[in-house]
Amino acid sequence: MPKGTVMTTLDNRPATVDWAARPVPDSPDAWLARAREVREVLAVGAAARDRAGQTPYDEIALLKNSGLVTLLGPVAHGGGGQEWPTAYRVVREIAAADGSVGQLLGYHYLWNWAARLVGTPEQIEAVEADAARNRWFFGGAVNPRDTDVRIRDEGDHIVFNGRKSFSTGSKVSDVTVLEGVLDGTDTHVFAIVPSDQPGITFHDDWDNFGQRLTESGGVTITEVSVPWAGAAGFVGKTFQPRVYNTLNVPTIQLVFVSFYLGIARGALETAAGYTRTESRSWLHGGYERAVDEPYVLDLYGDLASKLWAVEALADQVAQEGLALHRDAWHVTERQRGEHEVRVAALKARATDVALEVTSRVLEGTGARSTTTELGLDRFWRNVRTHTLHDPVAYKRREVGAHLLRDELPQPTWYS
Amino acid sequence: MPKGTVMTTLDNRPATVDWAARPVPDSPDAWLARAREVREVLAVGAAARDRAGQTPYDEIALLKNSGLVTLLGPVAHGGGGQEWPTAYRVVREIAAADGSVGQLLGYHYLWNWAARLVGTPEQIEAVEADAARNRWFFGGAVNPRDTDVRIRDEGDHIVFNGRKSFSTGSKVSDVTVLEGVLDGTDTHVFAIVPSDQPGITFHDDWDNFGQRLTESGGVTITEVSVPWAGAAGFVGKTFQPRVYNTLNVPTIQLVFVSFYLGIARGALETAAGYTRTESRSWLHGGYERAVDEPYVLDLYGDLASKLWAVEALADQVAQEGLALHRDAWHVTERQRGEHEVRVAALKARATDVALEVTSRVLEGTGARSTTTELGLDRFWRNVRTHTLHDPVAYKRREVGAHLLRDELPQPTWYS
Amino acid sequence: MPKGTVMTTLDNRPATVDWAARPVPDSPDAWLARAREVREVLAVGAAARDRAGQTPYDEIALLKNSGLVTLLGPVAHGGGGQEWPTAYRVVREIAAADGSVGQLLGYHYLWNWAARLVGTPEQIEAVEADAARNRWFFGGAVNPRDTDVRIRDEGDHIVFNGRKSFSTGSKVSDVTVLEGVLDGTDTHVFAIVPSDQPGITFHDDWDNFGQRLTESGGVTITEVSVPWAGAAGFVGKTFQPRVYNTLNVPTIQLVFVSFYLGIARGALETAAGYTRTESRSWLHGGYERAVDEPYVLDLYGDLASKLWAVEALADQVAQEGLALHRDAWHVTERQRGEHEVRVAALKARATDVALEVTSRVLEGTGARSTTTELGLDRFWRNVRTHTLHDPVAYKRREVGAHLLRDELPQPTWYS
Amino acid sequence: MPKGTVMTTLDNRPATVDWAARPVPDSPDAWLARAREVREVLAVGAAARDRAGQTPYDEIALLKNSGLVTLLGPVAHGGGGQEWPTAYRVVREIAAADGSVGQLLGYHYLWNWAARLVGTPEQIEAVEADAARNRWFFGGAVNPRDTDVRIRDEGDHIVFNGRKSFSTGSKVSDVTVLEGVLDGTDTHVFAIVPSDQPGITFHDDWDNFGQRLTESGGVTITEVSVPWAGAAGFVGKTFQPRVYNTLNVPTIQLVFVSFYLGIARGALETAAGYTRTESRSWLHGGYERAVDEPYVLDLYGDLASKLWAVEALADQVAQEGLALHRDAWHVTERQRGEHEVRVAALKARATDVALEVTSRVLEGTGARSTTTELGLDRFWRNVRTHTLHDPVAYKRREVGAHLLRDELPQPTWYS
Repeated sequence: MPKGTVMTTLDNRPATVDWAARPVPDSPDAWLARAREVREVLAVGAAARDRAGQTPYDEIALLKNSGLVTLLGPVAHGGGGQEWPTAYRVVREIAAADGSVGQLLGYHYLWNWAARLVGTPEQIEAVEADAARNRWFFGGAVNPRDTDVRIRDEGDHIVFNGRKSFSTGSKVSDVTVLEGVLDGTDTHVFAIVPSDQPGITFHDDWDNFGQRLTESGGVTITEVSVPWAGAAGFVGKTFQPRVYNTLNVPTIQLVFVSFYLGIARGALETAAGYTRTESRSWLHGGYERAVDEPYVLDLYGDLASKLWAVEALADQVAQEGLALHRDAWHVTERQRGEHEVRVAALKARATDVALEVTSRVLEGTGARSTTTELGLDRFWRNVRTHTLHDPVAYKRREVGAHLLRDELPQPTWYS
Repeated sequence: MPKGTVMTTLDNRPATVDWAARPVPDSPDAWLARAREVREVLAVGAAARDRAGQTPYDEIALLKNSGLVTLLGPVAHGGGGQEWPTAYRVVREIAAADGSVGQLLGYHYLWNWAARLVGTPEQIEAVEADAARNRWFFGGAVNPRDTDVRIRDEGDHIVFNGRKSFSTGSKVSDVTVLEGVLDGTDTHVFAIVPSDQPGITFHDDWDNFGQRLTESGGVTITEVSVPWAGAAGFVGKTFQPRVYNTLNVPTIQLVFVSFYLGIARGALETAAGYTRTESRSWLHGGYERAVDEPYVLDLYGDLASKLWAVEALADQVAQEGLALHRDAWHVTERQRGEHEVRVAALKARATDVALEVTSRVLEGTGARSTTTELGLDRFWRNVRTHTLHDPVAYKRREVGAHLLRDELPQPTWYS
Repeated sequence: MPKGTVMTTLDNRPATVDWAARPVPDSPDAWLARAREVREVLAVGAAARDRAGQTPYDEIALLKNSGLVTLLGPVAHGGGGQEWPTAYRVVREIAAADGSVGQLLGYHYLWNWAARLVGTPEQIEAVEADAARNRWFFGGAVNPRDTDVRIRDEGDHIVFNGRKSFSTGSKVSDVTVLEGVLDGTDTHVFAIVPSDQPGITFHDDWDNFGQRLTESGGVTITEVSVPWAGAAGFVGKTFQPRVYNTLNVPTIQLVFVSFYLGIARGALETAAGYTRTESRSWLHGGYERAVDEPYVLDLYGDLASKLWAVEALADQVAQEGLALHRDAWHVTERQRGEHEVRVAALKARATDVALEVTSRVLEGTGARSTTTELGLDRFWRNVRTHTLHDPVAYKRREVGAHLLRDELPQPTWYS
Repeated sequence: MPKGTVMTTLDNRPATVDWAARPVPDSPDAWLARAREVREVLAVGAAARDRAGQTPYDEIALLKNSGLVTLLGPVAHGGGGQEWPTAYRVVREIAAADGSVGQLLGYHYLWNWAARLVGTPEQIEAVEADAARNRWFFGGAVNPRDTDVRIRDEGDHIVFNGRKSFSTGSKVSDVTVLEGVLDGTDTHVFAIVPSDQPGITFHDDWDNFGQRLTESGGVTITEVSVPWAGAAGFVGKTFQPRVYNTLNVPTIQLVFVSFYLGIARGALETAAGYTRTESRSWLHGGYERAVDEPYVLDLYGDLASKLWAVEALADQVAQEGLALHRDAWHVTERQRGEHEVRVAALKARATDVALEVTSRVLEGTGARSTTTELGLDRFWRNVRTHTLHDPVAYKRREVGAHLLRDELPQPTWYS
């Protein structure tokens, strides 16, 4: 069975949507509406998929068929032509239904966009056109901190060999951003390669308690060959990228925040639905319905208020970032740094609030809601897992250091 | 000495500004810049004024001289022509320097705008023109919950007699919104009267631990006469207002939130300034400066992040409200209710975060910062006092009831 | 293979202990030391057992072999002769290694002790003697709120038929406390029956995300026959128990708290061990070891402090309860009520702190600690599941109502 | 008027107690009952005294007349013969009525006891006998961190000159512990001197927003002469103390915690009294009395639970310390260190909870409770001020470093 046939395992989903027959969304609102439709489809069976640890072929196919993967792509090549703030909102919607799929979509946007960080203008244009036209889904096998993948120069080609501990989404992707170190040098080279090739084997060893379907396991690279022309930023074997665009950390972290907030909202709304229809009021409390219990009203009011505040900050910081993205090659160190500080604050708040919401909503659903079948613990597990990606304490520290010492965070690879 | 001479008690302030010589701001940004200038002036001596419980004649004069009082007034009559979101931001700036003055300015905007709630179109226009032209500062002696002030019909005049427990700002104002009940009826009548008249005597009994300079004490009304034409909404002794504009609660509460957030930011920035220049690192900690202490960086980072999130929500909710204000007479019950729910959530967050910030910043300033002279406790005292205005628990409840029961809050007078 | 052979699945445990060769502990400290030994054995493989959802035959055998099941039993019959405070501490120790086994042991103590709530003096004595002598492990199929199990009077026997939704521990127990309603009456009858009999079939339908090994599923009762003499509190078919002993709720809730605190401590210590040996310091932080990171030190210091405070309250409230247990038949309504209020406060704190500890420790272990193999999420899942047993909000309410209205909680069945 | 005449300003207190006619308490419970009686007297007028910043002559006289000052003194000389855990509890009771007086009493116990830290056995015995017999109230002018007071050797006398920034309680005391540095050496010398002498002048410059009556201001020392025999620990001009007793930090910090907890309890109970009798239910809430409001019940229940947990930890840690105090000269480094870690955890919890209780209780008393006359803000101001004495972050760090690195805190002077 070809992967990507959405119908097979989704046949009890609300509706089988013929996405191809639908017009391409042409505004942020239209894209959000599209994302919400996809969210509804994904919400069905999410707990079961999490339990099964099922490789999300169908779900990625859905992201492709619905067009969401092309959101940021150039209109001329069939892309949505949208900007990052809309992408963040779309990731939130998807993550509300399925945290793993939300993360995969967010990472896809990042890998696709990453060409801009190191590519030549020609490469950037080519990648974005191809990606949009073919609705490529991107994965990545990149870790500039280590040298596990070596590159051999074979004249007009370079050949990758080695292994990476993490390759989020690569297994379910069309193309993979691959990174390695050129033999005899310290130079990291990035290239985009087809994911489905014999030289790439997946260890299938991502077995973690949260974000279980992100296929984040290790990968072995064996003689994967790429023409020098595909080496990002290289012109004639020499690295000649445009001035380094240092928006990677804020953008990456905003994507992270987006699926944290999405998962939290998913938890809140899923729980609210359950409380409305299934939860019982307390035996000795004197209220007829759970939704009349003062403590239940207080709980949901408190959690919704907290979540709304962080969502508002996310929206505001996304807009601040948009101005920088639109003029990415002229961003000053101070602009970049102040933006990263804002993102750091957002990350800190999103982490705290998403953890609180996903843990405390269960007080609103009650004892009978703890079945494995409902799987209401998955929201907390998902948030808890990915919020450890890098220590949030350093985010608070960045904010404090800026406030007290006017310090600007230095650009790094991903945090 | 005429009240309003800013110089006398402010002679050690940064600069004596000749406001009259300055152009009137003509954009939200220009008004915010103006507000920040005024904030700088007000910040000097704020602790001393709080300690002294000093009636803020000079500070109100400053609000008038700098033009801030006309912010919302019609341009044609010398007003700033701005809208509520800018007013909220201006209140925040002023409250960051002096919580009481921030509250007074916010209440002034509300009293001035209150004509729209009950007046006839002609009255509204006249009040707004007069107020802008004369740079009136508004106070109020209104409490529709009681009947302490009675009104006698004297043919073409009505005459007010009685007392009100609270008359915030009236003592330092040019005009006072007065409210009473018409003898023999249940009808509440509102009118705007000059504050400086023998029939209005102030009890000077506002002696509370926070917002000490708001002159919120009681007032006795003795034979205060108003022509029937000044009875808001009355045409020929009959109450014929436009359809009741029910935006009062969200607007009032957004003003409250604005000075809570302003006070919190004032606390954070004042404390940060002290930590930078005065605080010592801990004897046994091994750090040279207080700003190098990990716990200090973490503290400020945490508090700033929390505050930023609520500020972002405040900005977002203000924009949501703006759409309603612009079409105030066609607001549906659902639009109004959903907006009030958002405001309720904001109020809940602003309360929690402002209390936390104003209490915890002192961990960043340290033991020697607890002098009465510095008065760094005033931020907490100010927030703690006014956030009790109405129980914040009911705000969380409103949010919860909306989320779980799709309930819309019913319009009330002020909360 | 007979169940109860500890060796089979525990062969990689620290040591194979020949418990029978060891002297019976004879003081609270000695029992605690014993419990800590058992804890060490149970800690090995706990994550794997949780993952497998494995019926804890071996673990219950360990509780029996090590003598812990007899802790509260009469010395004359081989019991430990200890009192409740020691039992709570033992449950904490066991739960620190395995939350489910901790709960099972705690419930065992309760079921064993429950004879005192409804039995005649002779029955109480007989049950406690038999239980100690035979090292019975107790389960229960009791829910006085429903009438799912009916009882038929067959002259000198009564016969139970029906089903219960929950029968915690019954499947792995020697005897089960069974409860039903006598046909034609409202009378609930309790009896202790052998668990391993054809008339008791287990649904094996406890599939929840926490406390997974507690075998809390439903049970069907078919023609289970008990002599009238075994009907607790009945003398010649007439219910003639001693004056109703109303310490059940405080005692039950103290047992709950005990395993919450045990799980939290298990989380803290397991995480600390990992942080010491496995966690890496942050790439950009400048510290060599994770245990040198200020945020890591702060985190563990904060969590340990919080846990210690609740543990201290648990110890104090256990002592307060001990005085009542020692004179259980003369407890006044006020003594009982004030004790329950203290227990309610403890429950509220234990819930909050156990949730916080089990969620936040992961910030100290870091991204690589989220593997399913380590299973560090199980602590939170265990606490989150059982703390929903009854709404903790009502516990805070009980405390508030006592403080403000001098109200005493009314005795109920279990909460 | 001689200081110490309690009657003058206390004539509207509950009763004028003839303490001299009462038997001396002879058990911990009897002393606590005595403390509660004194608490009742002190509670009257506490807000007014705080407002007035009134030197607590009368209140110290009350502590003396009631015998509380001799609590720890030797029975043979009229002392109470009690131990530290009772002293901590007494301080809590007193601080519940008046935080400043609670602090003064706690410091008095510390100064009186401090002889044990540096004195010879003969000096210790003499000081404790004299103190008990004369019911001395102790103050202190000590800061071993600086060298502001120099000592001149005059043969058989030493003469102190200089100044200290803080001399808590000295102004209202009978004797002052004075500390200085011997000229030409680094040796700190301690001595007890009469407080009321021309050579000691008080700056009366303690003007802080909390603990306002502690008379913690600076002091100038001019030619204060002490015989060498009074130089603590000196035998013939040579320092020959017993082995250094390093329990000072844990004991000092337990005293601090005691008045934090006392203040918090004072806040909680004062607020509860107000809520019961004065607070109104919310206009739109549908409840008749404030004590029926779910949010009010929840608030008090939450705060009481939190406070109880820390009180329990305080009691437990006090008992742990008692074992060390009883065998003070044989305390090992590990025993001492582990005790200090427990105290550090307690300090961290007491700080957080006392701040939370004193700030949040006002949500239970409501808007009308913010008058200066009631002064309900004083609890927060008192806690906030003294909890900054040394950074609580370092307490959490101590706990974390012990848990993760098995590190023992090193003995220091006071924190």
